[in-house]
Amino acid sequence: MANNKQIIFSKGERETLHKVLAARRDMRHFVSGSSVSADVMDRLFAAAHLAPSVGLMQPWRFIQVQNDQVRKDIAMLVDEEIKATANEIGLRKSEFLKLKLEGVRTCAQLVAVVLAPDDGTILGRRTLPRETALCSAACAIENMWLAARAENIGLGWVSLFDPKKLGALLHCPKEALPIALLCIGPVHEFYEKPMLVQEGWRDEKPLAGMLFEDRWPIEGEVQ
Amino acid sequence: MANNKQIIFSKGERETLHKVLAARRDMRHFVSGSSVSADVMDRLFAAAHLAPSVGLMQPWRFIQVQNDQVRKDIAMLVDEEIKATANEIGLRKSEFLKLKLEGVRTCAQLVAVVLAPDDGTILGRRTLPRETALCSAACAIENMWLAARAENIGLGWVSLFDPKKLGALLHCPKEALPIALLCIGPVHEFYEKPMLVQEGWRDEKPLAGMLFEDRWPIEGEVQ
Repeated sequence: MANNKQIIFSKGERETLHKVLAARRDMRHFVSGSSVSADVMDRLFAAAHLAPSVGLMQPWRFIQVQNDQVRKDIAMLVDEEIKATANEIGLRKSEFLKLKLEGVRTCAQLVAVVLAPDDGTILGRRTLPRETALCSAACAIENMWLAARAENIGLGWVSLFDPKKLGALLHCPKEALPIALLCIGPVHEFYEKPMLVQEGWRDEKPLAGMLFEDRWPIEGEVQ
Repeated sequence: MANNKQIIFSKGERETLHKVLAARRDMRHFVSGSSVSADVMDRLFAAAHLAPSVGLMQPWRFIQVQNDQVRKDIAMLVDEEIKATANEIGLRKSEFLKLKLEGVRTCAQLVAVVLAPDDGTILGRRTLPRETALCSAACAIENMWLAARAENIGLGWVSLFDPKKLGALLHCPKEALPIALLCIGPVHEFYEKPMLVQEGWRDEKPLAGMLFEDRWPIEGEVQ
């Protein structure tokens, strides 16, 4: 890459970035039996690893699932958690169970993202140690997500699992925390809107109600 | 935007995304007395609001600091936390105090990002409720960060503050959690490497040691 000091992005490049941001979707429907080349996976991991991290702790760890039995065992954990959620979700249970919530069995590549055991970094983490580690790992996943969309392949972040059971299954140290199962691979088509919107589960809220000036608004106040 | 189904990114567009990912830096040095236009700020917030969120909860809230006294009060909180960190950091205290850790007073725009009080979303959040909310807000910040670099302006995520004190200062509800102070604005130049690397505080670790197959490695094992 050119010297960072000399890189000045053009309007066209800015527009490309916004196009990727807008086209990224949380995918659950994949083309079964498809594959992703090692080159593409390398680019996705490289994108993730370019993420910022508080105190430069780089807390992200990636477990690429290649073994079929491991994938099957993970899929069972997700099934279990979907059932547990259905039982808690109350009135909308049957509607919930109609949603396609994961693509663990059909996606071309499955990657677990695990938060590494705390390395003791203090800089920037004295008051919010756990939170800053989580946020750093999440930035890495968002980078990977955008990189996947730019490769024209889907990525879905599945958080429907018991982290202790998933950690045990993947032989993680007790102090590590699995935070994501990333389903990655070719899709038939990208959702036009977020899938939960398309399926009528929930509407998106506009930015206007989330942007305040100088302080949190008083209830009912329009800033 | 064109129909998402029809958007196929080209190699050139992919390369643009990776260029932005690689050129993004956590900035602490800003051009004082500079400004950022409302148009640019609109594009940054729009980028943030395109982020994914677990169960479509969209937990991010942005408080744009326009009042000088509010900014001064925030700067004092950050100073306080830097002192508290210095006292905990032990042997490297004097080296730590030489680092430039925030640009709160000099950046053109200061934005606090606050995690909204939990809205009770269950989908995808039964086992990791707090973590999934945090990760969603972090993805929004990463989007904003990339958008800022593409505008050729800097962004620095400052996490050196006591969240309770900052929440009180910004009149946030008790259940809300400030997670970031974003310093945004023109910079003299972008750091070539992460500032903590440039200053000799810490080295980056390579991706190779963070990418595993099927399970967490046994200590000392090379996969």
